Amino acid sequence: MYFKCKLKECNIIFGHNNVISIKDFEKEDIKFILDEAEKLEDIAQSKEKSEELSGKILGLLFYEPSTRTRLSFETAMKRLGGDCISLGETSNSSVAKGESIADTAKMFESYCDAIVIRHDLEGVSRFLSDVIDVPIINAGDGAGQHPTQTLLDLYTIRKHFGKIDGLNIALLGDLKYGRTVHSLSYALGMYDVKMTFVSPEELKMPKENLLDLEKNNIKYKETSNLKDIIDEIDVLYVTRIQKERFPDIEEYEKIKGAYLINKDLLEGKELIVMHPLPRVDEIDYDVDNTKYNKYFEQAANAIPVRMAILKNLIRHRYE
Amino acid sequence: MYFKCKLKECNIIFGHNNVISIKDFEKEDIKFILDEAEKLEDIAQSKEKSEELSGKILGLLFYEPSTRTRLSFETAMKRLGGDCISLGETSNSSVAKGESIADTAKMFESYCDAIVIRHDLEGVSRFLSDVIDVPIINAGDGAGQHPTQTLLDLYTIRKHFGKIDGLNIALLGDLKYGRTVHSLSYALGMYDVKMTFVSPEELKMPKENLLDLEKNNIKYKETSNLKDIIDEIDVLYVTRIQKERFPDIEEYEKIKGAYLINKDLLEGKELIVMHPLPRVDEIDYDVDNTKYNKYFEQAANAIPVRMAILKNLIRHRYE
Amino acid sequence: MYFKCKLKECNIIFGHNNVISIKDFEKEDIKFILDEAEKLEDIAQSKEKSEELSGKILGLLFYEPSTRTRLSFETAMKRLGGDCISLGETSNSSVAKGESIADTAKMFESYCDAIVIRHDLEGVSRFLSDVIDVPIINAGDGAGQHPTQTLLDLYTIRKHFGKIDGLNIALLGDLKYGRTVHSLSYALGMYDVKMTFVSPEELKMPKENLLDLEKNNIKYKETSNLKDIIDEIDVLYVTRIQKERFPDIEEYEKIKGAYLINKDLLEGKELIVMHPLPRVDEIDYDVDNTKYNKYFEQAANAIPVRMAILKNLIRHRYE
Repeated sequence: MYFKCKLKECNIIFGHNNVISIKDFEKEDIKFILDEAEKLEDIAQSKEKSEELSGKILGLLFYEPSTRTRLSFETAMKRLGGDCISLGETSNSSVAKGESIADTAKMFESYCDAIVIRHDLEGVSRFLSDVIDVPIINAGDGAGQHPTQTLLDLYTIRKHFGKIDGLNIALLGDLKYGRTVHSLSYALGMYDVKMTFVSPEELKMPKENLLDLEKNNIKYKETSNLKDIIDEIDVLYVTRIQKERFPDIEEYEKIKGAYLINKDLLEGKELIVMHPLPRVDEIDYDVDNTKYNKYFEQAANAIPVRMAILKNLIRHRYE
Repeated sequence: MYFKCKLKECNIIFGHNNVISIKDFEKEDIKFILDEAEKLEDIAQSKEKSEELSGKILGLLFYEPSTRTRLSFETAMKRLGGDCISLGETSNSSVAKGESIADTAKMFESYCDAIVIRHDLEGVSRFLSDVIDVPIINAGDGAGQHPTQTLLDLYTIRKHFGKIDGLNIALLGDLKYGRTVHSLSYALGMYDVKMTFVSPEELKMPKENLLDLEKNNIKYKETSNLKDIIDEIDVLYVTRIQKERFPDIEEYEKIKGAYLINKDLLEGKELIVMHPLPRVDEIDYDVDNTKYNKYFEQAANAIPVRMAILKNLIRHRYE
Repeated sequence: MYFKCKLKECNIIFGHNNVISIKDFEKEDIKFILDEAEKLEDIAQSKEKSEELSGKILGLLFYEPSTRTRLSFETAMKRLGGDCISLGETSNSSVAKGESIADTAKMFESYCDAIVIRHDLEGVSRFLSDVIDVPIINAGDGAGQHPTQTLLDLYTIRKHFGKIDGLNIALLGDLKYGRTVHSLSYALGMYDVKMTFVSPEELKMPKENLLDLEKNNIKYKETSNLKDIIDEIDVLYVTRIQKERFPDIEEYEKIKGAYLINKDLLEGKELIVMHPLPRVDEIDYDVDNTKYNKYFEQAANAIPVRMAILKNLIRHRYE
């Protein structure tokens, strides 16, 4: 499942080059990025102006669409004074003419100062980081990793609670196939947290992810019943359960209903609700205007966190 | 038909927030924008350079394509030193994954300093302006409004004649369904003008629009025969008659021919021809190189007018 | 085949306006652009920052996709501090509503400081340069011209050998239909070179192109057998042989195999391999990490060369 690389290829704090997997990060690397992001908040919110990356260009290689990820990288780059170029839809590009990913990336290498890649195949961004000289940022590769999502998730938690240690964090939904929850679970394993996994029996967290936690002596609980644990948790991280996972549509409808988060369910609780978005109907709209809603802020946090990554990866090349 | 809002939500001159409907504008608001646009001409034509909106980002939410509107907003933003991000084609974005408009707009709210929205549903931009904090600019919502088009139309008339008062302005084509002519007619009702409506019987100006004029004591004439009135008018504003409006294609062909504007028809007259573009065959290409042609300049006027709007909406937030 | 224009419309060195065909260039114009490009290398590679074209906008009118050409123009513009607007996919724009090319270009004329056009119809960019005031750059028009590709090809050769005179340059592949090789052959005719044409019998260089060379007393050789000449040449310029040219797929497969460039074939030779890219399988991946590979650098050279063109075309308008 995971790419088992033990190299510290993207150990930014020591001046390394790529952001491929959260597994390449030490705890102090994560702290470094979150601290950097914090300092960039005023620029992210456009209260202050930056020319830090002026003249620099970020290449966007999205082999599958991801609106939020693409736009937040674009915004992050532009808030820092830089600019972007984009492959655009692959159906309408050199990709359609049969060009290999490596050749396309080689082109971006000579036009850009860093490359963000999203692809449906696991391992693609690791492969590219071996053949391409400019920094590669993995923005999701199939069932693999999405490290910058994890960093902004951690930033959101730390920003709200002032810390990550000591919290009980529940991940809910499709825990079997969701790369977002796999990456996040791995990263949280570096902290002193309790983990709670809420999913239908068919979509439980894979064994290897649980083993990663055990290695770090993290206590975790698994359940299919949200109500059993809702009073214990500080963070409820919701992800979508995709219809396609179920051969039987009735089975899906039943399960979907059991995991719908709404205001009634949350009333009186002391927790925050997160979601990588877009949501379809996992979280009722009546949660939007409550104190529980952290998913919109979470999306906003993509800007300072991705700014911190871009700034440090790109500046590093010229120092 | 019209959104009957009486609130002065976008009364820019008093520092308000959105541009939703021309009906939210007082005459002095319009004058303010047109005066501002005039001052921005040198920057619009790139004879002068501006850093006014440097670091600021405009979000483009086009749920239906509109090349001229999109590109002129982009250019306006970039001429002022700012930049844009775009949802892109909705078939290839989070919209396709089932995300609601409000959620998509929430994302743009945290990435941008203002949002331009084009949608085929009337009322969408008004709705968004209620739930979104950054300024919303309506770039056309179904049969509803397209206020910035109206402002650039007025700008074009004022630039040519040095005034709007005292003119006889003819609107020609599909007056029943065309939001452009509805908005323009409403705005002209604030001035001391004569209005002439030229259309096939089936596509006459709706009663309520005529009532708006009557309230302002504007004299108007309705006819299906262009030749009857062509000697009286100062402005001939042409719009497309869409084939889809006619069940009978022969009927359409007959009508289309009756409203074709060409050089022969205009010879010796003292009027200007306007058109929101794109044209298909409403105006013959032989008009392009005559003094009657104001439609290309009209498209060019989109830049200073939209610059004036962007500058005042966005700067206002930081003052 | 070629557009037989004898006007010096794009003679940049004398301050002219458009880049339509390499045939409009004198040898000293080419030298001027290549020298300019050389000076811009540090900015192209983002070692230095430029604000030269800040506030300026380049319009991208791509009626057919061309990823490398589009992205390198974008990068060139942005490295110089400028920005771009793009028609986007024509299926989703005013073009789909039936707008003429001239009308679309008129819109870009009033929004941009220069226009790059790619179209599948020969002569389109020449036509536009007659009706549009801002500089037009031809980025490929059907079987016609692609002059900026030729300039970057020449730049690549000169950069490697320090000169163009005295070299033996082989063009290989589809020499009958390929506009790239036609333009390049014409331009090389201005230098003191030997030319070698390698192609299947069905895809030989057209007579008129050979006549152009004869007029300039250029010695050339034609062959269908690469091995016959590989020891004599300094540059092997490879182009794709398109399957569609052959009624018989077996015939195609046979020919394709005969023109595959791989490491074994090149071993011990003193030549460089060029390709306008994207390649599909004309050049084996085992050539990538050899000294023969100049095609990636060739793609990178698009930036300084296109910067030189943009800078001189656009700055000229404001001086």
